[in-house]
Amino acid sequence: MMRTRPLKVALLGCGVVGSEVARIMATHADDLTARIGAPVELAGIAVRRPGRARAGVPAELITTDATALVKRGDIDVVIEVIGGIEPARSLITTAFEHGASVVSANKALLAEDGAALHAAAEERGADLYYEAAVAGAIPLVRPLRESLAGDTVNRVLGIVNGTTNFILDKMDSSGAGYSEALDEATALGYAEADPTADVEGFDAAAKAAILAGIAFHTRVRLDDVHREGLTEVTASDIASAKRMGCTVKLLAICERAGDGRSVTARVHPAMIPLTHPLASVREAYNAVFVEAEAAGQLMFYGPGAGGPPTASAVLGDLVAACRNKLAGTTGPGESAYTRLPVSPMGEVVTRYHISLDVADKPGVLAQVAQVFAEHGVSIDTVRQQGKDGEASLVVVTHRAPDAALSATVETLRQLDTVRGVASIMRVEGE
Amino acid sequence: MMRTRPLKVALLGCGVVGSEVARIMATHADDLTARIGAPVELAGIAVRRPGRARAGVPAELITTDATALVKRGDIDVVIEVIGGIEPARSLITTAFEHGASVVSANKALLAEDGAALHAAAEERGADLYYEAAVAGAIPLVRPLRESLAGDTVNRVLGIVNGTTNFILDKMDSSGAGYSEALDEATALGYAEADPTADVEGFDAAAKAAILAGIAFHTRVRLDDVHREGLTEVTASDIASAKRMGCTVKLLAICERAGDGRSVTARVHPAMIPLTHPLASVREAYNAVFVEAEAAGQLMFYGPGAGGPPTASAVLGDLVAACRNKLAGTTGPGESAYTRLPVSPMGEVVTRYHISLDVADKPGVLAQVAQVFAEHGVSIDTVRQQGKDGEASLVVVTHRAPDAALSATVETLRQLDTVRGVASIMRVEGE
Repeated sequence: MMRTRPLKVALLGCGVVGSEVARIMATHADDLTARIGAPVELAGIAVRRPGRARAGVPAELITTDATALVKRGDIDVVIEVIGGIEPARSLITTAFEHGASVVSANKALLAEDGAALHAAAEERGADLYYEAAVAGAIPLVRPLRESLAGDTVNRVLGIVNGTTNFILDKMDSSGAGYSEALDEATALGYAEADPTADVEGFDAAAKAAILAGIAFHTRVRLDDVHREGLTEVTASDIASAKRMGCTVKLLAICERAGDGRSVTARVHPAMIPLTHPLASVREAYNAVFVEAEAAGQLMFYGPGAGGPPTASAVLGDLVAACRNKLAGTTGPGESAYTRLPVSPMGEVVTRYHISLDVADKPGVLAQVAQVFAEHGVSIDTVRQQGKDGEASLVVVTHRAPDAALSATVETLRQLDTVRGVASIMRVEGE
Repeated sequence: MMRTRPLKVALLGCGVVGSEVARIMATHADDLTARIGAPVELAGIAVRRPGRARAGVPAELITTDATALVKRGDIDVVIEVIGGIEPARSLITTAFEHGASVVSANKALLAEDGAALHAAAEERGADLYYEAAVAGAIPLVRPLRESLAGDTVNRVLGIVNGTTNFILDKMDSSGAGYSEALDEATALGYAEADPTADVEGFDAAAKAAILAGIAFHTRVRLDDVHREGLTEVTASDIASAKRMGCTVKLLAICERAGDGRSVTARVHPAMIPLTHPLASVREAYNAVFVEAEAAGQLMFYGPGAGGPPTASAVLGDLVAACRNKLAGTTGPGESAYTRLPVSPMGEVVTRYHISLDVADKPGVLAQVAQVFAEHGVSIDTVRQQGKDGEASLVVVTHRAPDAALSATVETLRQLDTVRGVASIMRVEGE
């Protein structure tokens, strides 16, 4: 049964992930051969800077001409770990045109253009796998696409960005402010020099788009995902969360709307109870809850980034793509048959935790409560604190549409007795 | 592309799981059609007691002749949710002979005879899927077989039996003894009338055999798994665990031995630190840690049993088997190429927590310590407690081969000054 002609693999990108993929392919060649049913060999590695030292990576395979590599015609599988939209998109499309299947770790590209890439793969009878694009080594794409293919997923709720979880964990454990925690994350290599993609939530939003699309069998793009980063989260927010028995996490939340006819996808900081399993996800770990009709609540936990974990996910997909090549078949393609529309954030039903600085005089609470009532928002708890002539009011609402909650806050801002809105945070996971 | 002739499914067994499978196939027919690429229909349901009322299950499909059903020749996929060795084994074999793929939830059969069943499937070009056999709805078999196919798994450690976790959780939270907690589990439907398979660890051992085989790409049978149930666990053991900052869980542990040339698989009660994520797995939930070279530590958590969760796993496999049928291919078969032998329990390296009732006189501790030293077992901590002329010694060891630890205990039992060995429990998860 064992085929002797090796399957040929082109590797696009040889940074932290790519070099680890090359290393494992070399050190575990026999295992990969046994698991695939044929030998697999690296036929070329495209990089931008060929001079850079890459320990354990065969120098003779290095090329700067990625396009020529994917056009060779004898490549069975292209692994794309460059990231970003271009040239990754053109290279993947060219790979399909030349008969290769593709394994990608590119969350931004998948979230932006997944439908077109899936269509290109299907047209050429090729596979497009991307387990590494969401939550690193944690199997999520395959379980959602395949293990839960007979179930109905209603909710995906998770921590899918390690950098921001590290920052929030530091803020929670040490009482540090955002910039101090970010500095520590940068010093330890958890945050990049330009942390925008992480701290503004772009990375998590791309993952939310991918997860929502797969979970609900529809198309969700990055632009469909409501996105708030964590740069506005203060030490005082974290302290408020603690007083409520909560902690603050940057969550990606994908939900089927109540009537089942639309979905929502969002990324924002939120308070979750300390008793929720996601509350104990520390440092740069990721964890994702999946709620399905029959399966109930499942959780997947593990390292969400880093060279070896991401390489593990890439190599799992490589084995699958190679097996399919040998069998002359492909794995499951895009499943977007439900065509469920994505509802705007205003229709999401959630709870708010609002801190107001108010004048310390009688009647303020009544006035504030009236504003909530006018917007149809029911109040769960109110806590008043006096501090030197001023007072603060902390209001936690019951569940209401986000639009009603945010209109309430807008009206509160206009009250003379409200000196300022110190913080607004959603409360999830209850 | 959509095929109109439906794929035909035979369902063997219509108890808690089977009736849920039938129900979901009926209520979610359109979703299954879209996800598979062709309609799928129940062609027959084999049961032992046809007279029993089964809400929502089409009466005209019920038959008592399971053999005739799998021999019909037009069945694409057989779902086996009967459990037990026979007649399940013969029916599955007959199903393969007649061209069907099989989805099974049968842990006992897979652990006893998985290799032969895989061989029968391969010979006929059929699929054998069994996600539901391990930890209910939690995707574990597919992630291990496919997502981690490019990685090297070194350890699988988990809670894979909900009944025993419910019992231990009750003992831990209420201080109840084993029988009292078992009674509660029975009353609430978490334990069967004859709880032997669960409380003696047979169920968990079957799952450990399946997981070890998949994780290490070798063959592990039920007989290879060292098995201790929880019937000997006392309220006092749980209290001792608490004093150590631990709790007691019935764990399934599959490990690659230090030199990588053998594996071990075992099921026994063990103390684990409260800080370990498995410690917070409550009630009848399951959770499994997987440690892989590149991926690092992953955890999978969810409901490990019950009709709907098990049906979710069955239906995910059904979709995969049907897709493969349409594509004229099969999924990954058995991977047992490493042929790693299974080492006996004596070679497992672990730690012991031992409670001794000893004479309350000088020199006893020295004498006991000498026994440990003679067996090459290093002591981590000793705690002495006096009670009315008697004394108890609690010894926690460092890591040592299980054979040395158990020989130590045998020698201790023979000391005049040792009145009894009150409890022995392994300590894991550190």
